Amino acid sequence: MKAKRIEELKTPAFLVDLPKLKSNLRNMQERARKHGVRLRPHVKTHKTAEIARLQTPDEACGITVSTLAEAHFFQKAGFDDITYAFPISPNKLAEAAELTGRMKQFHILLDQFATATAVEAYARANNICFSVFLKVDCGYHRAGVDPCAPESVHLAGQMQASKHIRFRGILTHAGHSYHSRNPQETIAIARQERDVMVEFSDRLKLHGTACETISVGSTPTAMHAPDWQGISEIRPGNYAFFDRFQADIGSCSLEEAAATVLTTVVAHYPQHNQMLIDAGALALSKDPGAVHLDEEIVYGAVPGNPLLKIFSISQEHGLITSQAPIAFNKFPVGSLLQIIPNHSCLTAALFDRYHVVDGNRVVDEWRPMRGW
Amino acid sequence: MKAKRIEELKTPAFLVDLPKLKSNLRNMQERARKHGVRLRPHVKTHKTAEIARLQTPDEACGITVSTLAEAHFFQKAGFDDITYAFPISPNKLAEAAELTGRMKQFHILLDQFATATAVEAYARANNICFSVFLKVDCGYHRAGVDPCAPESVHLAGQMQASKHIRFRGILTHAGHSYHSRNPQETIAIARQERDVMVEFSDRLKLHGTACETISVGSTPTAMHAPDWQGISEIRPGNYAFFDRFQADIGSCSLEEAAATVLTTVVAHYPQHNQMLIDAGALALSKDPGAVHLDEEIVYGAVPGNPLLKIFSISQEHGLITSQAPIAFNKFPVGSLLQIIPNHSCLTAALFDRYHVVDGNRVVDEWRPMRGW
Repeated sequence: MKAKRIEELKTPAFLVDLPKLKSNLRNMQERARKHGVRLRPHVKTHKTAEIARLQTPDEACGITVSTLAEAHFFQKAGFDDITYAFPISPNKLAEAAELTGRMKQFHILLDQFATATAVEAYARANNICFSVFLKVDCGYHRAGVDPCAPESVHLAGQMQASKHIRFRGILTHAGHSYHSRNPQETIAIARQERDVMVEFSDRLKLHGTACETISVGSTPTAMHAPDWQGISEIRPGNYAFFDRFQADIGSCSLEEAAATVLTTVVAHYPQHNQMLIDAGALALSKDPGAVHLDEEIVYGAVPGNPLLKIFSISQEHGLITSQAPIAFNKFPVGSLLQIIPNHSCLTAALFDRYHVVDGNRVVDEWRPMRGW
Repeated sequence: MKAKRIEELKTPAFLVDLPKLKSNLRNMQERARKHGVRLRPHVKTHKTAEIARLQTPDEACGITVSTLAEAHFFQKAGFDDITYAFPISPNKLAEAAELTGRMKQFHILLDQFATATAVEAYARANNICFSVFLKVDCGYHRAGVDPCAPESVHLAGQMQASKHIRFRGILTHAGHSYHSRNPQETIAIARQERDVMVEFSDRLKLHGTACETISVGSTPTAMHAPDWQGISEIRPGNYAFFDRFQADIGSCSLEEAAATVLTTVVAHYPQHNQMLIDAGALALSKDPGAVHLDEEIVYGAVPGNPLLKIFSISQEHGLITSQAPIAFNKFPVGSLLQIIPNHSCLTAALFDRYHVVDGNRVVDEWRPMRGW
């Protein structure tokens, strides 16, 4: 760590506001404690051992990852209870087996008969046992079995009957909460998420299949769920950083966003009412934000300057305009801006290092992992 | 390099088709030679020393980079004539000075009086000389001086008069060629790009400022320009890989796309006519493609399967649907697909390694640089 103050950093740079981060983590821990659910944070948002440790102070709950490379990285960093929350495919079973052997608990998930058969065959051939969740579609329609379909009950039963699968329970991600327009709609989705899972678990029980764990996810529902009765654990991830999207749908305020991209004002174009910054698509990502709330695509928010709009980004160029004439003397060439990204998970993944800041001071540097 | 065949690779993976790459590079070299312009390829698309070497067989023309980190990387890889084609900002001058000292030719560019003053002051204070281009706006309106404004002539004159600036000439990027709908429109933009630059150079000459180099860019105009009379060099970059966007606007055919993302079919959802793949936003990027041609956003093309549409991507999940009922038996769970990304520059930047393939064989592995 060389730089001591934000002004000394090379731009573009990824900043993590430590007090805001800690406050976001604490709030979620308190919500989980209050509602009596385990918090198994999804670490894909930040991919750093440092934040994962801050997220899991009691080390009892484990973490969630989105790739096998993350599982390896966090296992090496000392985590020994990890859920790989992406449906396993047959070509990843050897690696999943290796990870199963390396830690106390490694959970995979699936939603296909073909995959269950492949998992069982692999485990039998290698005389091992996989810990497996059945992935359930609670209304998002991205992945997961239909909880109303009889085959879903059969699939759970088939897993429970296998000697080489430890059927762990059911898991869902209410990603449709990202289509929510306000906390009221998010509350309704959180209710649906809970109800679908609890009812499906009850139905499985009637058919003789017990769910040890009922796992739900998503930052919006985790922030707004009125209760989690019957739910074992929650797996939010984005809440560590939040972002413009989460602020737009009401999961947080913009002030709570803990991750920003530091950029330099490079040029003024008064003839077009535009400024050029050195944060483009490789520093911000092309995530368009909450387009269901506002069709106009803007690539991030500039705190304290709500009229400024990052309306266009290419690889390294970002262009800012404003609804009003830009007060260019407020943003001299060479001055710095901090941008709250639309989607912090995608933006964070573009950087090799995070500069951890407290006020104006750079207090640490963290290295996220990447790749697959 | 461990894997020998595509089937052995972990997914998602970034593949570079070596014969297609070489053919794309050769075609552009031939175009440049035929038209009597130097080719100074933009290496931001791939960020690898291997491809940059293939792109510059005679080593006479130098390369173009988009970040100072790229400049350092390629300097260390043996390149000694580099243009940093992003407007310099005052906080990057120390690094630019270091790079200037390390190689035969290092060119920066600017379009602001404030920056010219800062460049001159820095160079004077450190008793060095920067090689500087004036960046010109030829109609894209992203960056560059207005070639019709009298101040633009003054800015060039101020640079030429400085003892600490070697005024190199004028440089533009016709990025509005990306809004083109067909080769005819691209040809018109290529004409404008050339005409604006040649006329501006003539005007500068009338005012006593000589342009040693007139530099233009963009893959679409480089593919379609009918002539480059009066132009010194071209700086296309994307043509090495091409992508779905370039095919859509007519810069290439889909068959010429040399970069693909290898992904696994993870799940079938016949009830939604959908398939899940393990290539999401971190493997494909959220670039929406040529939305000016088709408002429906699809995140890449599946060669040989024109009806398949990657209609939704989140961090690691990609969802495919089809206009017709999907023939699921054609895409078994665990089978592989190759996807041509919408924007290869942004997609390539998401990967730590490229698997170089020739047919079904993996013949090499290249490591791109990243960061700033």
